[in-house]
Amino acid sequence: MALAPRHLISLSDLDDGVLDEVLELSARLKRRTGRGELAGKTIGMLFFRGSLRTRASLETAVLQLGGSVVNLTAMSDFWELEEREGSVMDGRAPEHIKDAAAVLSRYVHALAIRPAPLGNSWDVDRRDERIRAWAKYATVPVMNMESSLWHPLQALADVLTLKERLGDPRGKELAITWVHSPTPASPSAVHSLLHAALRFGMRVRLAHPAGFELDGGVLSEAEDLARASGGTLRRELSLEEAVRGARVVYARSWQSLETYGNPTLTASQRSRHIGWRIDEKLLASGQDAYLMHAMPVRRNVEVTDEVLDGPRSLLYEQAANRLPTQMALLVNLLR
Amino acid sequence: MALAPRHLISLSDLDDGVLDEVLELSARLKRRTGRGELAGKTIGMLFFRGSLRTRASLETAVLQLGGSVVNLTAMSDFWELEEREGSVMDGRAPEHIKDAAAVLSRYVHALAIRPAPLGNSWDVDRRDERIRAWAKYATVPVMNMESSLWHPLQALADVLTLKERLGDPRGKELAITWVHSPTPASPSAVHSLLHAALRFGMRVRLAHPAGFELDGGVLSEAEDLARASGGTLRRELSLEEAVRGARVVYARSWQSLETYGNPTLTASQRSRHIGWRIDEKLLASGQDAYLMHAMPVRRNVEVTDEVLDGPRSLLYEQAANRLPTQMALLVNLLR
Amino acid sequence: MALAPRHLISLSDLDDGVLDEVLELSARLKRRTGRGELAGKTIGMLFFRGSLRTRASLETAVLQLGGSVVNLTAMSDFWELEEREGSVMDGRAPEHIKDAAAVLSRYVHALAIRPAPLGNSWDVDRRDERIRAWAKYATVPVMNMESSLWHPLQALADVLTLKERLGDPRGKELAITWVHSPTPASPSAVHSLLHAALRFGMRVRLAHPAGFELDGGVLSEAEDLARASGGTLRRELSLEEAVRGARVVYARSWQSLETYGNPTLTASQRSRHIGWRIDEKLLASGQDAYLMHAMPVRRNVEVTDEVLDGPRSLLYEQAANRLPTQMALLVNLLR
Repeated sequence: MALAPRHLISLSDLDDGVLDEVLELSARLKRRTGRGELAGKTIGMLFFRGSLRTRASLETAVLQLGGSVVNLTAMSDFWELEEREGSVMDGRAPEHIKDAAAVLSRYVHALAIRPAPLGNSWDVDRRDERIRAWAKYATVPVMNMESSLWHPLQALADVLTLKERLGDPRGKELAITWVHSPTPASPSAVHSLLHAALRFGMRVRLAHPAGFELDGGVLSEAEDLARASGGTLRRELSLEEAVRGARVVYARSWQSLETYGNPTLTASQRSRHIGWRIDEKLLASGQDAYLMHAMPVRRNVEVTDEVLDGPRSLLYEQAANRLPTQMALLVNLLR
Repeated sequence: MALAPRHLISLSDLDDGVLDEVLELSARLKRRTGRGELAGKTIGMLFFRGSLRTRASLETAVLQLGGSVVNLTAMSDFWELEEREGSVMDGRAPEHIKDAAAVLSRYVHALAIRPAPLGNSWDVDRRDERIRAWAKYATVPVMNMESSLWHPLQALADVLTLKERLGDPRGKELAITWVHSPTPASPSAVHSLLHAALRFGMRVRLAHPAGFELDGGVLSEAEDLARASGGTLRRELSLEEAVRGARVVYARSWQSLETYGNPTLTASQRSRHIGWRIDEKLLASGQDAYLMHAMPVRRNVEVTDEVLDGPRSLLYEQAANRLPTQMALLVNLLR
Repeated sequence: MALAPRHLISLSDLDDGVLDEVLELSARLKRRTGRGELAGKTIGMLFFRGSLRTRASLETAVLQLGGSVVNLTAMSDFWELEEREGSVMDGRAPEHIKDAAAVLSRYVHALAIRPAPLGNSWDVDRRDERIRAWAKYATVPVMNMESSLWHPLQALADVLTLKERLGDPRGKELAITWVHSPTPASPSAVHSLLHAALRFGMRVRLAHPAGFELDGGVLSEAEDLARASGGTLRRELSLEEAVRGARVVYARSWQSLETYGNPTLTASQRSRHIGWRIDEKLLASGQDAYLMHAMPVRRNVEVTDEVLDGPRSLLYEQAANRLPTQMALLVNLLR
């Protein structure tokens, strides 16, 4: 292969021109069905963790473009892979990611991967070593189907939804708020959205309880992106402060990175914040505010039924937008 | 979507005209291969219980018509879904069927679902609440790949087989007989067949040991169907009475609904009936009788090898007929 | 079906003319993409054991030829199948292979099967009863995706690689050497390669520690093949003797058939041979020798990084050749 393959690990892998192209193509693909842009192409999917929306929407995106999918069930011992260079492989892993990636690259035209975190230390997991090892060794494009740090496929759908509803997002107020859940997600979707919104010059307000700060490196890069685009980032707001006057409220329950890897401490810390929930009264303090959420959503715990089933909820539009944005991305990465 | 989607939960969802259309199209599809009737269409399949025939035949039906399949492995904790309206979702289920159904409806053109029963109480499981919740919330057609109460896809194949072998089934004698097995099935296939046979005016004889009565609601509707069509239903026959003079013997081992949810009682009750088995001598008392069975069949426990491997067995024809009937149904539901 | 289907259980199912045809078609398929040779055809895949290369490459081969795949997850209790003729099936297996094979043959155009060994006795497992039962009862071609005794799909890729690198393999020196691994494979790939190399008249040297003899029946047939082709087979060599002057070194860790089914004895026996490893110095004693290996490979245990990442390693070529050889085989079996 003459050129290095283009990967998508985080949205920063798409420069502004490419990101605009992908979003414009997404909009076009919503108006017409695919025309076989991936005919003859096979995409390999590896899930080291379960998935509903990502799996169903990415498979469908490939199929609707005339491509085919090989879905390699990767959630068993058999798939223990070594990632360290130079190791003497006398342990549990029978194969090195280097070799698995090299071989699969000879069969398929792109690899979509959802790695599993180790779950012990955020300092380790934030490095996204597994997905980066796949990208390092694969000779075809690698797409990140959500790692510890990033969820670029969700963010693409989120941005398309924002643009459809707000027009140019520049200068618009976006509240990103933590909400309570007994089973919080990784902050990956919020990390990717935060960067995307600031690249488009939005005015972002971030609200969460103490102890639920986002990743420090992600926040620092976010400040840089805001400076470059003219967007703003206000942090450490209360839920009420963040929502007041916002055009869009993006709710998400993410796990504490402070108590990461300590389930007991995590649960006790989280239980102090059950008041962090979106209801009609709160949403009404926004500026005709829409509600967004990457799902799955725990009804009446994270957000009330009234809001979720009401006219301001964009959840199903966001989910639906996974399809055209992923189609556009596939066309872009594989052309 | 302008119109409500058409679902297939039980055969009663197909009125007589549609049922005839589907069976006629099935016969045509047996004579020629598909012509891309599902080109560009993607079918989502969700198995909350395992499957051999249904999975292989439905996937193949879609593929042979030029469509594609997204098979969502649904047999893990990850797929715990809430089904009650208005619940405060702080328990195990991270997502509501309402939301899963709404999202998947935006990706695929139909959903085929095999729900798992709870297994504790027949009064609860007979309500088929899960498959009905999917149908309630989905905005695309939902196909039942066997619930507690119904197995309409099997019944369609059974009816096509009956018509191929008997011509017009009206007035023909069909014996539906319980047989012994250490691992009996749900009565779903027999429920659906019973209704189908009576809609076509057959003379049905039903045989089973005491304690193995079919569902009361299903039987009551069966009487209504018989009255409407001129068919008849004779019940509480012995195995010998049912088979004598029958044109077709349909054997099935179903679990007792009386001892449902009580495995110890169930096994002890069942073991008293090991004589309920089909052999050559018994089948010879029919009127050139054919043997039908929805499979899997325990050889020499439910039916002897001699019968199964003999010229009167229609088991493989029934199984083969899953393909054209499901093709025809897909074409009908998705047009 | 008028003619008996053609199966591929071992390479002996392909006579010399067919084998040549398949290899020539493989070479042609490497130079151009498929042209829909399998359009309208569906291949059923059943994995009773996990797989990376075989699954990904065979699915891709089918898809690239315009066919479709039904991948039946077969690694659960649900898939317990009876294989003995005439048994009274009151045990764990709810279905007979006879019936599963007959039914699936009515849905798909070929079946690819990876059976699981019982693992207790080599005398039993070497009979490959399960894959042979599938072939006996199926009415469509059955392809062996690695049984206890044979791995013909790997051997086809190996032979294509040998021919590409050596030209006519006749009279060339091939060293097949055991190497150490904590998780050795079945000898299946080596068995199939041994027979293939001797059919092509190669001069084969076989090296392994005492106690790691290949299957006696396979060796005896190998001697016959050598006599017929003019090839030679030298056995019971040391690692150094086998490699010295060889054109190709084929490394593989296979389990001892002497201690088969006795894990404790097996591990203790194996640990005495950790020196059986391929490094640069050893490989340099060959005649510009290439390294081959069927993968997965434990780096720095079976073979050093230096060799694996160096210019003499053909591992990725072998793996890549799975694709065109399997395409060619599918075209041949299904025409």
